[in-house]
Amino acid sequence: MINLYVSRKALSYTFPIFFCMKALVVICDGMGDRPIEELGKKTPLEVARTPNMDELAARGINGTMHPIGPGIRAGSDTSHLAILGYDPFKVYTGRGPFEAAGLGIELKPGDIAFRCNFATIDENMVVTDRRAGRIKDTTELAKIINTLTLPGVEIIFKSLSYRGALVLRGRGLSYKVSDSDPHYPNKKVEKVKPLDNSKEAKRTAQLVNEFTEKVQEALSGKKANMLLLRGCGAAVKLQSITEKYGISGSCMATTAIIKGIAKSVGMNIINADLNYLKRSSRALKELEKVDFLLMNIKEADEAGHDHNPRKKVEIIEKIDEAIGVFLDFSQENYVAVLADHTTPCSFGDHTGDPVPITICGPEVRTDEVDKFSERANSKGGLGWIVGTNFMPILLNFMNKSEKFGA
Amino acid sequence: MINLYVSRKALSYTFPIFFCMKALVVICDGMGDRPIEELGKKTPLEVARTPNMDELAARGINGTMHPIGPGIRAGSDTSHLAILGYDPFKVYTGRGPFEAAGLGIELKPGDIAFRCNFATIDENMVVTDRRAGRIKDTTELAKIINTLTLPGVEIIFKSLSYRGALVLRGRGLSYKVSDSDPHYPNKKVEKVKPLDNSKEAKRTAQLVNEFTEKVQEALSGKKANMLLLRGCGAAVKLQSITEKYGISGSCMATTAIIKGIAKSVGMNIINADLNYLKRSSRALKELEKVDFLLMNIKEADEAGHDHNPRKKVEIIEKIDEAIGVFLDFSQENYVAVLADHTTPCSFGDHTGDPVPITICGPEVRTDEVDKFSERANSKGGLGWIVGTNFMPILLNFMNKSEKFGA
Repeated sequence: MINLYVSRKALSYTFPIFFCMKALVVICDGMGDRPIEELGKKTPLEVARTPNMDELAARGINGTMHPIGPGIRAGSDTSHLAILGYDPFKVYTGRGPFEAAGLGIELKPGDIAFRCNFATIDENMVVTDRRAGRIKDTTELAKIINTLTLPGVEIIFKSLSYRGALVLRGRGLSYKVSDSDPHYPNKKVEKVKPLDNSKEAKRTAQLVNEFTEKVQEALSGKKANMLLLRGCGAAVKLQSITEKYGISGSCMATTAIIKGIAKSVGMNIINADLNYLKRSSRALKELEKVDFLLMNIKEADEAGHDHNPRKKVEIIEKIDEAIGVFLDFSQENYVAVLADHTTPCSFGDHTGDPVPITICGPEVRTDEVDKFSERANSKGGLGWIVGTNFMPILLNFMNKSEKFGA
Repeated sequence: MINLYVSRKALSYTFPIFFCMKALVVICDGMGDRPIEELGKKTPLEVARTPNMDELAARGINGTMHPIGPGIRAGSDTSHLAILGYDPFKVYTGRGPFEAAGLGIELKPGDIAFRCNFATIDENMVVTDRRAGRIKDTTELAKIINTLTLPGVEIIFKSLSYRGALVLRGRGLSYKVSDSDPHYPNKKVEKVKPLDNSKEAKRTAQLVNEFTEKVQEALSGKKANMLLLRGCGAAVKLQSITEKYGISGSCMATTAIIKGIAKSVGMNIINADLNYLKRSSRALKELEKVDFLLMNIKEADEAGHDHNPRKKVEIIEKIDEAIGVFLDFSQENYVAVLADHTTPCSFGDHTGDPVPITICGPEVRTDEVDKFSERANSKGGLGWIVGTNFMPILLNFMNKSEKFGA
């Protein structure tokens, strides 16, 4: 009998146009942790039963990633930008523009944007509820905000439940302004201040304070009677991943900010089902259409923010089940599993500790790591990389890189 | 009895002017590979019997090198520049100037240069043979090319067999122009196009197209009746290694491009014998005169380009024999063995996978690696470095570095 099996990789060499290696990148948000006393000085990932991630590690190449750089505390937004190959030090000035993009606003260079919360304040401008009772339908409120006017500036506002994004469009605006959001309840709404001495920052601060007054007037008497602004940033035109890498890509995510980042670099957005296994089958279906899928799984990060190591272990085990669906796919394509940053249950927020990363697929130089975890992966053949190294490494495996030189 | 033996290293501390540590850098072109099914999921270097490289690894310090950066696919030219300590992102715009230098043309800042092939075309400008039957003697053809004229531009051409380099010298030239070489047979000679909107690029493209017409006229009726141009780059004045590091150096290589790079940084060029062992004795002889010898061994790369893993194993074993000649030398001096990039037999071209590196010599912090290979070296004490880290590390061992600070 003749063995007619030809690997996809082999076909990709002969017919590169028809048989491109595909890649699935599973970013387990905030999954990295520190050793926890309560877990016997282990991390949730070390304690969790993760046979599928472990198999990928055993068949793959493993390492440690500093999302931004050694010791630097990454946000999910800056780390996703870095992982997608966009230097956050160059393209990121605040989360506002990415939140706005995630809510479907088309930004233009020169725009500035804020992340917003509908909130409840009392008669002294003191915030009594930062989320206005997690109000669900804000369609009418958004309409009101969009009727407001400012001199020489266009106002574009969108919301989804109590969350929203505000874009200011006009000449001479600066993102160098502070937040009106006091970040804690029982504090007064802050006056927005310029963060440098430019006349643009001073004018923008004035305009935003005027906007806040108009919001207070327009929403007076309602439960959601204020809009708190934070994370101002300047819109930047980013090259799409198709222009940059010659690949098509989609992003599956639950949070607006991750969707916004993916949209900003020209990726299709698909919603994540609540059921992890359904997410996985949807991901595989999407990968029939596109070369590259980024799948952000948010829940481990939330357990970290909630200081809940047991919950984090549970979630990691569920994520592992979902990853089991990809084992087959990883035989002929690339599956990367990593975290975007560390969210230790002890600290309850992101830290600058690095994260484990595994890339599994044809022809990788396997190593002796057979368990996926923060410490096991540090013995792997990928060594230590930073977030912006990830895409060049992945594209190299996919045979999608340009040669530099001859 | 008194032990009168004093090591060269000890003498170098006391009499640094007379007893300088020397260094031999053996760059095995394209030797890195990926695990290959046919070789039992091992790389050619893992399969090959390499007792001498293994001894250097056992007595040396080992690591992994990204020639340019993680995942970046290096050319041999850009990687050699990086290994010699010249950032290719700053000094490399195309291979042309280095090819020209390799053929003995003295370049000046402002010059642009192309790599050229003598070719055969038919009456419709379709290339029927990209190498004009690998024509050997092109002295007369080169003379004809050098009689051609262009307005305001000096033409300097040199060739060796069917290969050559063309330098254009004059004001306001730009390297941002495309190739006339269609890169494949049975295709028409391309019109050279400007690659940006500058008037310099437009004028250069015009001039080069005029040159191509003149070549066609001048070589009409000959077998080699066209000159195909590619890899245009701008000449850059590079500091010599003597100015930069205070060392004298030679380069043993077979290809014009590597010789050209070495010449561009002020190194002497010595030819490589066909016999590997003769190369080694020639190298040791040269090291009596100079501090530093770069020895490029081309053949493993060719086996990679030819998709021939068995051949690659054979070549690596021959290279190992040649390296055996240096074991003695490495007791009192430094011998580094590395690849300039990975050329997987599966892919048949350079990829961005990193390469193993070993530095053996006095006082290095030895590690537990006792086998030289892609995966064994990733457990070494040198960790992960990039190409431009290599010279500072080597010069430091040689006690040839300046202190930064007090």
